[in-house]
Amino acid sequence: MDARLPSSDIISRFTALVGPANVVSDPQEIAPRLVENRGLYKGASPLVLKPGSTQEVSAILRLASETGTAIVPQTGNTGLVGGQTPSADGTQLILSLERMNRIRDIDPLANLLVAEGGCILADVQKAAESVGRLFPLSLGSEGSCRIGGNLSTNAGGTAVLAYGNMRQLCLGLEVVLPTGEIWNGLRRLKKDNTGYDLRDLFIGAEGTLGVITAAVLKLFPQPVGHQVAFVGLASPQHALALFEKASNLCGTALTGFELMPRIGIEFTTRHIAGVRDPLPTVHDWYVLVDISTSDSAETAERLVHALLEQGLEAGLVENAVIAASVAQAKALWHMRESMSDAQKPEGGSIKHDVSVPVSKIPAFMAAAEEGVLAAMPGARICAFGHLGDGNIHYNISQPVGADKTAFLARWREMNAIVHAIVLEAGGSISAEHGIGQLKRDELAAIRPEIEIDLMRRIKHAFDPAGIMNPGKVISS
Amino acid sequence: MDARLPSSDIISRFTALVGPANVVSDPQEIAPRLVENRGLYKGASPLVLKPGSTQEVSAILRLASETGTAIVPQTGNTGLVGGQTPSADGTQLILSLERMNRIRDIDPLANLLVAEGGCILADVQKAAESVGRLFPLSLGSEGSCRIGGNLSTNAGGTAVLAYGNMRQLCLGLEVVLPTGEIWNGLRRLKKDNTGYDLRDLFIGAEGTLGVITAAVLKLFPQPVGHQVAFVGLASPQHALALFEKASNLCGTALTGFELMPRIGIEFTTRHIAGVRDPLPTVHDWYVLVDISTSDSAETAERLVHALLEQGLEAGLVENAVIAASVAQAKALWHMRESMSDAQKPEGGSIKHDVSVPVSKIPAFMAAAEEGVLAAMPGARICAFGHLGDGNIHYNISQPVGADKTAFLARWREMNAIVHAIVLEAGGSISAEHGIGQLKRDELAAIRPEIEIDLMRRIKHAFDPAGIMNPGKVISS
Repeated sequence: MDARLPSSDIISRFTALVGPANVVSDPQEIAPRLVENRGLYKGASPLVLKPGSTQEVSAILRLASETGTAIVPQTGNTGLVGGQTPSADGTQLILSLERMNRIRDIDPLANLLVAEGGCILADVQKAAESVGRLFPLSLGSEGSCRIGGNLSTNAGGTAVLAYGNMRQLCLGLEVVLPTGEIWNGLRRLKKDNTGYDLRDLFIGAEGTLGVITAAVLKLFPQPVGHQVAFVGLASPQHALALFEKASNLCGTALTGFELMPRIGIEFTTRHIAGVRDPLPTVHDWYVLVDISTSDSAETAERLVHALLEQGLEAGLVENAVIAASVAQAKALWHMRESMSDAQKPEGGSIKHDVSVPVSKIPAFMAAAEEGVLAAMPGARICAFGHLGDGNIHYNISQPVGADKTAFLARWREMNAIVHAIVLEAGGSISAEHGIGQLKRDELAAIRPEIEIDLMRRIKHAFDPAGIMNPGKVISS
Repeated sequence: MDARLPSSDIISRFTALVGPANVVSDPQEIAPRLVENRGLYKGASPLVLKPGSTQEVSAILRLASETGTAIVPQTGNTGLVGGQTPSADGTQLILSLERMNRIRDIDPLANLLVAEGGCILADVQKAAESVGRLFPLSLGSEGSCRIGGNLSTNAGGTAVLAYGNMRQLCLGLEVVLPTGEIWNGLRRLKKDNTGYDLRDLFIGAEGTLGVITAAVLKLFPQPVGHQVAFVGLASPQHALALFEKASNLCGTALTGFELMPRIGIEFTTRHIAGVRDPLPTVHDWYVLVDISTSDSAETAERLVHALLEQGLEAGLVENAVIAASVAQAKALWHMRESMSDAQKPEGGSIKHDVSVPVSKIPAFMAAAEEGVLAAMPGARICAFGHLGDGNIHYNISQPVGADKTAFLARWREMNAIVHAIVLEAGGSISAEHGIGQLKRDELAAIRPEIEIDLMRRIKHAFDPAGIMNPGKVISS
């Protein structure tokens, strides 16, 4: 594909497909769509297309394939790896699904709903709640991220432990292929062994194989019992031992197990309005335990008390508090969820989104700390996350008083240190955020050639014109 | 690819790759591998290759691609759609994984094991048990089916309700591609968003995209409490209402919910040694309820009693018995699992393995019965299965005294009747058995062209020489 700037004729033809009212061409209005949250990438684009239907998406991609015009799908623009950001050369058009935000159907009896790709995650949660059901996907950006992006990145979040990633929450998809063809795979079945698993190929493909325009999503009964505990303990090793007890005791009633370091509590209490340290004592590490039960409220109560007793007896729990109200439970989760934002006032932050086998978390934490501090004395490691999934957001705040720009210039260097330890442990350099632009070349470097080659073969088979979010995940 | 008979030179070259001791060329020894369980297909093949390592599998597929020799992977030969059966023209070689039956690693702390593709399912279950863990996949043929086949068909069975299909039980794969290249995707991670989901593409591909030589499988804590109840009730509608109560009450502690008709109880008590009717009363329909709890044995006991009470109060349960011992629980499951075999002495049986959204099961059962009996008065419908998954094995035994051959000649006709009702309900014509040869052309007929075309593009991208189990799932 040529990387020519789209001609005014081509711009007009695209505009005609959705109508002038549904394009954005004013550079000032386009600007916020060209940067992502962390400011790592800045793209350029002459046009944002806002189709109102699957047919319009189809027409756009057909014209794109015909004219060799690259299309970047965008939903909530909350991705963290530059997957939704166009290239800087101004040759790519943005396709925004924001107008396709209908809940097409909701069936509480069958425990499912059908949402369009532009639905905001929080709206899907609310729709489920309105019929007495739970849609469990939950993440910090749920007020603005959208289902199409959640699916395209196989989003994770805080409820993965019990309910799985987005992949596990989806029964069927409607996808517009790069050629403009529409695949209606909106199945509502728990079991269906009829050929290759196309659904899971599109989920997590970060918009490089097609545009997900709608999905059948699973709903769950709302839990009857819910308990949240906040526990102070000595080390990740102690946290892991407590996790094993929790897992054995609660089974799938264990709906969250989040690890946090002392510095994370300091950052949030210092910078996030309304956050207070839940415990009167100071501990090196903390876990937030979330338990949800379906049979009775008493079961959750019994489980949380039994867990803390077992933890105290085994010398794992130093101190703990159980949320006494819904408001207190929310406050504990709010602290955990604001831990990313709380790092911003502390200066630059170099991020990692890694996973290792759960049992290797303590060894990973120790080795990574040693490696990071050897390379950068004074670095403040704020590593927190989903211990139960083996997924740690290994964030490094700059040393106090350091120069932010000079610190951030060492992003790749610090990545190399942390990722080497992750790979040594058989881990992943992107547990839930995806590859996008940020980790594309690194992925190609660490994976066997055959794996990248298989992905490329699939990409070429689905997108022969190379117009679908080119340059993301794999190079063309 | 030419469909020439392999020359003696080619046979010698393949033989040399694994050594003469590890091939089968005696037609009598080959014979049992050329037929499948139901006798629907009879293939021909001059040679069975039994590689002992991933490297040998790689050498075989490389030579196959070079010489254009078709290879049919076979593990336990228990498939029900002819996916493991070579073509009748004698041009295809069988690759048996039976020697690759090592458990390479087992890690109870991390809740996983690594099994080779030739491991028998029951051996994997036992290996898990030996370290105090559960590998939950369970099906009638577990004593002879093997992990490679379980993965390649995305096997289901009786524990899907709580634990999912084989797809949900697998973390990583090692696959030999048709070109002989080896993909090492043996990851042990709960979360890993690094590119296209190759794992799920190979799972369920029925050996057409490569040979699965090893897999990382998930283990679970062994349940502490276990209760099995056998319930007599009036109709599938009553069973569905009871399922909803069970689902709300037990959540993921509901580990089985199987529907059976009266005729199934009659067939099993008549033909299966040791099976007796568990209830003194006669009912039109039955369900087997299986509840497993992780916190205590009392919870399971409490749940099963609460469910039966609720069911009696709501007028859903006519009579019920709770297994009083492990032996009684096993006997109830044995009755359910021998329901397929129990049909054989009753003459011909025309099979369906369908799924519909769970809420549509009663309407489907009624419509299918009407359609089948209108076309074939006297047909004896023995429809049973995994109600909680929406998956019914809709089997039709021949009318008493009918001619078996004439009856079986109407297989496609009866399929057409049942499948039309399934499709009308948004269902699947193969819930868990796959496509193989049996449903290949039917799949192509019912699915949009783009879907079959996408599968074909993937097939060509992965298997350019067309040597990998050709003719299965999709035509070339």
